[in-house]
Amino acid sequence: MLEVSSNKNPMIKEVRSLYKKKNRWANKLFIIEGIKIIEEAIINQIEIKYILFSSSFIDSQEGKNFYYKIQDKAHIVKVKDSLFKSLSDTENPQGVMAVCQFNIRDLAEIESLSNPSIFFLDGLQDPGNMGTIIRTADAFKIDGIILGQGCVDPYNLKVVRSTMGSIFRVPLYSCHNSLETLADLKNKGFNILTATLEGEPIYNFDFKDKLVCIIGNEARGVNPKILHMANKSIKIPMPGDAESLNAAVAASIIMYELMKSRI
Amino acid sequence: MLEVSSNKNPMIKEVRSLYKKKNRWANKLFIIEGIKIIEEAIINQIEIKYILFSSSFIDSQEGKNFYYKIQDKAHIVKVKDSLFKSLSDTENPQGVMAVCQFNIRDLAEIESLSNPSIFFLDGLQDPGNMGTIIRTADAFKIDGIILGQGCVDPYNLKVVRSTMGSIFRVPLYSCHNSLETLADLKNKGFNILTATLEGEPIYNFDFKDKLVCIIGNEARGVNPKILHMANKSIKIPMPGDAESLNAAVAASIIMYELMKSRI
Repeated sequence: MLEVSSNKNPMIKEVRSLYKKKNRWANKLFIIEGIKIIEEAIINQIEIKYILFSSSFIDSQEGKNFYYKIQDKAHIVKVKDSLFKSLSDTENPQGVMAVCQFNIRDLAEIESLSNPSIFFLDGLQDPGNMGTIIRTADAFKIDGIILGQGCVDPYNLKVVRSTMGSIFRVPLYSCHNSLETLADLKNKGFNILTATLEGEPIYNFDFKDKLVCIIGNEARGVNPKILHMANKSIKIPMPGDAESLNAAVAASIIMYELMKSRI
Repeated sequence: MLEVSSNKNPMIKEVRSLYKKKNRWANKLFIIEGIKIIEEAIINQIEIKYILFSSSFIDSQEGKNFYYKIQDKAHIVKVKDSLFKSLSDTENPQGVMAVCQFNIRDLAEIESLSNPSIFFLDGLQDPGNMGTIIRTADAFKIDGIILGQGCVDPYNLKVVRSTMGSIFRVPLYSCHNSLETLADLKNKGFNILTATLEGEPIYNFDFKDKLVCIIGNEARGVNPKILHMANKSIKIPMPGDAESLNAAVAASIIMYELMKSRI
């Protein structure tokens, strides 16, 4: 097997370029790192462009086992240890990473779903929150997440890692114009739902109609123009003194009630 | 007002030392930074040892207003801009920070509460999760949080910031030996509750008796010896494919159901 040792190798240059959001979205490619998440990608039939093994990992027993298990799933390349380390995002790299295709879907697909419940993230900024929301959406079988304008990239390495594989399973949609996308969905009969302090207590809310639930930015909340577009509102009662919940917690509790209403 | 400009000033040395957990716990002191959280500390009657203003902030209109508002609440010190910046944890410091007392309470207090619901964190490691759990506990009026062995320090700056002031309100307890503390509470009639895949669906669980709910470490889950001690178990149904929820989300959903059972 060929061992790549040069920084100038086009594949190495591509991997390096994918640390930038702009390059990820131009090529619709992102990096995943570690055995477990690569296995998840394969199980979930994500298209893998290539898998890089560090020299010492592919020579180890664990590396050999993994290699034999996945060798027919993608193009495999051996990379000199020092070069691999320079590509890795972790302090103690396991010795394997892969480049795979985005699984962003076409917004038009939403219309064909039967009574879907979709979450719309309005400028969600924190990578941890993005990862947590994707993970909870997977656990509670939410029909999809639309990434509104100004969101942190779900394909950034920190987010991908924190989704624990859910990034491959939750239907993700992107949109260029949050207001237009929401107006369009509203025209098509979706309820636009927000959480406010004056809304209906969430446990009384009837989740049966198709809906888009808006989750706002961590600091600013929901954009006022989007808020204005909402035709339903719920509140999560907070008898204590905190002014608000963390955005990922609020989203998760709404997803949980939605899940309950379906079982 | 005296302006401190030397790195060797004992107060400056103390602030610097408080970036280390060991020193925070030896002195039961921690740092908070920014107008909003200092105001929260004052409202919640947290003992403030001193408040540092940067020279340029105290000379600004906003700084002056803040100074007049709080001058009788704590000892106030002016610090040279460059020195203040070197003490600050943020990239663009607002220009004000304070050193305040821990509000860790005595475990014995728990016995005097009427039917309390307490959360026990078993080796919770992620600062974001710790902050989120404290914030949700405040929102849903949980009776207390016990910090088990191996937890990230709730008084680290990142955690304090992410609690949005809830750190001052939620009753926090620390313990030296997780197993002993839990055995003791169990002897005193507390139910020890864990979330497992085989537990009772959470929405059927009767939260009315006094209980300690265990939240495990992000990677390892709950320590098997603690699991063995539990006499009640619930599950959060997950019809989707994710294997588990983020620890802070799981804790938040349990707190949410607990809050619901009380209203």
